[in-house]
Amino acid sequence: MALAYDPLVISSDQSSMEVASPPPVILTQDELKRIAAYKAVEFVESGMVIGLGTGSTAKHAVDRIGELLRQGKLKNIVGIPTSKETQEQALSLKIPLSDLDAHPVVDLSIDGADEVDPDLNLVKGRGGSLLREKMIEGASKKFVVIVDESKLVKHIGGSKLAMPVEIVPFCWKFTEEKLRKLFEGSGCVAKLRRRGREAFVTDNGNYIVEMYMEKEMGDVRAASDAILRLPGVVEHGMFLDMASTVIVAGESGTRMFQEEKRSN
Amino acid sequence: MALAYDPLVISSDQSSMEVASPPPVILTQDELKRIAAYKAVEFVESGMVIGLGTGSTAKHAVDRIGELLRQGKLKNIVGIPTSKETQEQALSLKIPLSDLDAHPVVDLSIDGADEVDPDLNLVKGRGGSLLREKMIEGASKKFVVIVDESKLVKHIGGSKLAMPVEIVPFCWKFTEEKLRKLFEGSGCVAKLRRRGREAFVTDNGNYIVEMYMEKEMGDVRAASDAILRLPGVVEHGMFLDMASTVIVAGESGTRMFQEEKRSN
Repeated sequence: MALAYDPLVISSDQSSMEVASPPPVILTQDELKRIAAYKAVEFVESGMVIGLGTGSTAKHAVDRIGELLRQGKLKNIVGIPTSKETQEQALSLKIPLSDLDAHPVVDLSIDGADEVDPDLNLVKGRGGSLLREKMIEGASKKFVVIVDESKLVKHIGGSKLAMPVEIVPFCWKFTEEKLRKLFEGSGCVAKLRRRGREAFVTDNGNYIVEMYMEKEMGDVRAASDAILRLPGVVEHGMFLDMASTVIVAGESGTRMFQEEKRSN
Repeated sequence: MALAYDPLVISSDQSSMEVASPPPVILTQDELKRIAAYKAVEFVESGMVIGLGTGSTAKHAVDRIGELLRQGKLKNIVGIPTSKETQEQALSLKIPLSDLDAHPVVDLSIDGADEVDPDLNLVKGRGGSLLREKMIEGASKKFVVIVDESKLVKHIGGSKLAMPVEIVPFCWKFTEEKLRKLFEGSGCVAKLRRRGREAFVTDNGNYIVEMYMEKEMGDVRAASDAILRLPGVVEHGMFLDMASTVIVAGESGTRMFQEEKRSN
């Protein structure tokens, strides 16, 4: 069970902020992302195996880890990148890298999210790396999610932005239609993600179907299993019961939500 | 609910056999496969969209459909091949072909299986085409399975042969170990399928982990969901509640099992 977004219950963490106390100026969304990212990197300790997330928020965390390594404030870190993009970034910062085959247990992962609901369930993968992210973050003892407050939603799909589903290219139209029908009652629209006129291709050689929900999809665990049972589906962007901590940067400071118990 | 293998309950179909009454000689396994395949093709009618299976038994059915088309006994058939291998066979037989994108509803699929349990649940995909087979056969109004009697098992995994799971190549060792651990209580051994020294690669560019069970894996639906929830897994070879008819060719004749109700 997670803590709810009730302001009476949340653990506000403004007092303990060391790196990034919000100055009394209007912060851009990118500055908020950086504040959350720096806060997350405070969880990193020397000797840890760290899952390195993908996307504009996670990028700040990877930069910060590189900086602390260079300054000698962190040592013996092993990074597990969640995408080719992050791998390149980490290499340029001289962060030593490995993979899940060599390090099947990850101490801590840090990544952004596209949506966070009151149970700390996430939508991720609008950047296209949902499968690798889910493998690495699912193998992590602690998974710290960093977002600006625009990512908080009342329910999964609540942002009206896409929930991505990775599917095999074989007969993708058929799978796209099966996905749409699964959530017909929620007013679902399903669209193949494209880069220009071509289908967008993931690091694993698959396609992405973006699902937009008009209404709540109901029980997210049942929805997850229903999606995974479709034979053409590889993985979806709902990360259920995975986040252990969510750091939210907003104009009024940084808030931290803790999952009381990890399910795995 | 399916009929059980109790000899008092099964619907023996020897009387109505037209093509393949067993002669009083010892039949080879391949002859039994052909008998079952020819029997299945009796379900094919002109104008149908037909899912064409993959493997040594299904090959006989595809050959037979080609023969009936050439003889003019079948007309206006559209075949949906479940693998590149079957596609090539069907093209050589001049069977008109299409795909699920153009024909999302398939009238009838015919395919072999590696195991058939008393509920008509199957293990399939030792040939490596489980994903395409599951997509096409899952989209079929009727799915006729053809086996020789060596394929009948008391429970899934009962043959002690492999249950294949298609996984993404990314960190395959990690996923292989997760799969093994999932069925540790069933004495599971998991091995990457290889072709020589290299990993075997499916038509979808993925790998196959072969799972061997020492003991029953328990509730197969729960096992299915647990496997599908692993992020590196694309699909598995258990075909649950999918077969509408199973034709079993044996020394003592052909038996036909009917699923009373399809679940989809």
